[in-house]
Amino acid sequence: MAKNDKMQTLGITTKKFDDTADWYSQVVTKSGMADYAPVKGCMIIKPLGYAVWQSVMDYFNSVIKGHGVQNAYFPMFIPESFFYKEAEHAEGFKPEVAWIEQKDDTKERYAIRPTSETIMYDTYSRWIRSWRDLPLKINQWCNICRWETQDCKIFLRSREFLWQEGHCVYETKEERDKETQIYLSEYKRLAEELLAIPVITGQKTDKEKFAGADRTFTIEGLMPDGKALQMGTSHDLSQGFAKAFGIKFAGRDDSEQIPFQNSWGFSTRLLGGIVMMHSDDKGLVLPPKVAPNKVVVIPLVFKDKKDSVLVAAKKILSDLKEFDPLFDDKWEDYSAGFRFSDWELKGIPLRIEVGPRDLENESVMVVRRDTAEKKSVKISELASFVRTELETMQNDMFTSAKKKFEENIVEVKTKEEFLKAVSSGKMALAPFTGDAEDEDFLKAETKGVTTRCIKCEATNGEKCFYTGKPAKYWIYFARNY
Amino acid sequence: MAKNDKMQTLGITTKKFDDTADWYSQVVTKSGMADYAPVKGCMIIKPLGYAVWQSVMDYFNSVIKGHGVQNAYFPMFIPESFFYKEAEHAEGFKPEVAWIEQKDDTKERYAIRPTSETIMYDTYSRWIRSWRDLPLKINQWCNICRWETQDCKIFLRSREFLWQEGHCVYETKEERDKETQIYLSEYKRLAEELLAIPVITGQKTDKEKFAGADRTFTIEGLMPDGKALQMGTSHDLSQGFAKAFGIKFAGRDDSEQIPFQNSWGFSTRLLGGIVMMHSDDKGLVLPPKVAPNKVVVIPLVFKDKKDSVLVAAKKILSDLKEFDPLFDDKWEDYSAGFRFSDWELKGIPLRIEVGPRDLENESVMVVRRDTAEKKSVKISELASFVRTELETMQNDMFTSAKKKFEENIVEVKTKEEFLKAVSSGKMALAPFTGDAEDEDFLKAETKGVTTRCIKCEATNGEKCFYTGKPAKYWIYFARNY
Repeated sequence: MAKNDKMQTLGITTKKFDDTADWYSQVVTKSGMADYAPVKGCMIIKPLGYAVWQSVMDYFNSVIKGHGVQNAYFPMFIPESFFYKEAEHAEGFKPEVAWIEQKDDTKERYAIRPTSETIMYDTYSRWIRSWRDLPLKINQWCNICRWETQDCKIFLRSREFLWQEGHCVYETKEERDKETQIYLSEYKRLAEELLAIPVITGQKTDKEKFAGADRTFTIEGLMPDGKALQMGTSHDLSQGFAKAFGIKFAGRDDSEQIPFQNSWGFSTRLLGGIVMMHSDDKGLVLPPKVAPNKVVVIPLVFKDKKDSVLVAAKKILSDLKEFDPLFDDKWEDYSAGFRFSDWELKGIPLRIEVGPRDLENESVMVVRRDTAEKKSVKISELASFVRTELETMQNDMFTSAKKKFEENIVEVKTKEEFLKAVSSGKMALAPFTGDAEDEDFLKAETKGVTTRCIKCEATNGEKCFYTGKPAKYWIYFARNY
Repeated sequence: MAKNDKMQTLGITTKKFDDTADWYSQVVTKSGMADYAPVKGCMIIKPLGYAVWQSVMDYFNSVIKGHGVQNAYFPMFIPESFFYKEAEHAEGFKPEVAWIEQKDDTKERYAIRPTSETIMYDTYSRWIRSWRDLPLKINQWCNICRWETQDCKIFLRSREFLWQEGHCVYETKEERDKETQIYLSEYKRLAEELLAIPVITGQKTDKEKFAGADRTFTIEGLMPDGKALQMGTSHDLSQGFAKAFGIKFAGRDDSEQIPFQNSWGFSTRLLGGIVMMHSDDKGLVLPPKVAPNKVVVIPLVFKDKKDSVLVAAKKILSDLKEFDPLFDDKWEDYSAGFRFSDWELKGIPLRIEVGPRDLENESVMVVRRDTAEKKSVKISELASFVRTELETMQNDMFTSAKKKFEENIVEVKTKEEFLKAVSSGKMALAPFTGDAEDEDFLKAETKGVTTRCIKCEATNGEKCFYTGKPAKYWIYFARNY
């Protein structure tokens, strides 16, 4: 340990469960996922974070292509009058909209998109003429601005973030309803199979639904600090949008009809979910499927064995090309221990130690980031071992997260049980009236516990845990990001 | 032709060389590449246009990854004070910047990025500490706002567009200079090999260089209407940025040093270049490499042969899967002639006609979009034929464009020759003083002819074609977009 280890102080200095907010901020910034921007409320997505986002984009582009959805790009500027065409929508977004100073001859203000329903549907009204133009299925990857006044929580709350927004138009309500559920289930699959984050799915209460939707469906994860994270929503839009923007079509019988629409989106908030869910006191842990570099090859260089170790390490690097391996060439400056910690901080799924002693047995040491488990592996079998080990790690991460998730959803029937659950970092599943007013009271009384989504109707005469009135639904409750 | 051909009127109604501006606008909108937005000066990139842009992004991401460049994302909002740190830069962008109304406690205005040097370099000053942090090579894909007052020319001039901007920092000037040229040559390769657009490369004059650069290098194409199109630029930045934003590093000898930087970018303007360059009176022509769907399979359905034709067409569709084939199922509603025109309008590189007569010989008819050349091809050899034909078409498109390009660059030595060249849709290569003042006079006198780039120094005592003074350079001149 005689080497230059001063950078050791760059490690995480708080524990995950001592001060989750500080720990999160440290993991995000020190791992290279993101950074705070010199503009209040904004973030910088650093190369590692952007590469994870790219994995998510690539995955989801292939998913939506399979459903016949095409990508497009609409302007970031939206005329003010567009917002006010759909009243609920305008009301919902009004406080968060940023406006630009520049105006044209009309003197109308331009907003920076907080979401793109209005500008897209105005255009759709010119693109759609007949049932032959339907379904119209368009997705957009873009930046979004919501002028938050709270401080930036990187990925979780910021004035600007990246997202995808799908906006589809259908001939029939049945087709629309079916597809709204398809995108919801694709979100669940993305969360669980790609990000290894278990989620519940369900309908939002009227109070929590999207401004302008008839029904909003959501996927929600539960973070280790007991807060729920809304990770994607899929909306059955009201026909208010179509009416407001004049979207209509000549039906199969030539009569004029109003189409049915949905919209659905997820954002870079997912990256915050990954960090929160999987990372630990040593730093970032990335599910292998979204890690841009799945292994790091670390030569353990000793003076007299330098050449043979480096030759072996370079050979391994080339054998593992399909995993986009990184190579640690910092042995001159830093001790092995420091280098191990540094790669752990950055969340590389597998560390491959190439040392003289193992090489005598034609082996290397492979260490898993999530469990720290070490295995000696024959070099001749390394590529196939790595392939399997990455799959195992991905599955184990999900299984372990799923187990905790299930333990932390508690069915409660009384207010006492409810308060005990939500104050101990759990999500409560409780019978509830479903009234917006009761939600408001509960949120105020508990300083922030909200309904996350409806699980199902309460059909066995259950009483609302909060009011004692007849319950309408079983609802998931939690604090949230 | 008894079928419903009323949509025939959706074809292009102007010829390319009768009214290029109108023709261009029609091709862009009617082919499905893009549309005008309900916000002045803005465009909507439609699915076909976005898919072509995606091809360009995929290609270039792989190129820059090979050069060790990583993608990241910086905020779209830039504090006003950042602009004024580098004086030339501020001056250059001032007229085009859009500002938002919202302010924070500091009361400072926020701009919407017209380019990201300032916000990125402010951040770089915190990321870079030592020579070990260099080179830092970052690229960003994002939207850009330049508040043009002129009308929107889709892809070519709009208030918002998409682009990539690379921003690298190096220890030495030599390394920087070398890499600035590497990105320039990658741009040339992209234009020529992917987009089939021949370009010249060279240095911009001082008057035309980027605001804040020591030297700007450019690739320029020549559109069929005689206007040059700047398609990508690579800048050796002045150290003014590093000094203004406090980017410095501890060198190998531990002394404090100022690094060297470059930046380089191209935008969705490239899509305008593709349309201008290759398309014709029938509509869009896309180079096969960027066409999302490289073939369309068109069954020629006749009453008594419907089933056998459809079975064969579907089989072919599945055999050609690797080319993302489209399937034309509109035979009920439209005549074959109309359908051919419609696919020509949309620029599908190869049309495959599956008709009963050809099927008797186990053949189909393959028609190239660029030349209208028809070939009868055995179904058993179709996939390999298509693969080769697409390559041939890509190469032919470049070769043909290159031939015209070379014919249209005219070496001139007198003002008379010069005026003749630039007024007949050609690019003039002429000896020139290189003085900014002379450029201004010339531009005013010719109503818009500008220097495009420097070819080389004038070392044989040439006289400036315009002033008669000793020439400093051979320079390319043209009108431009």
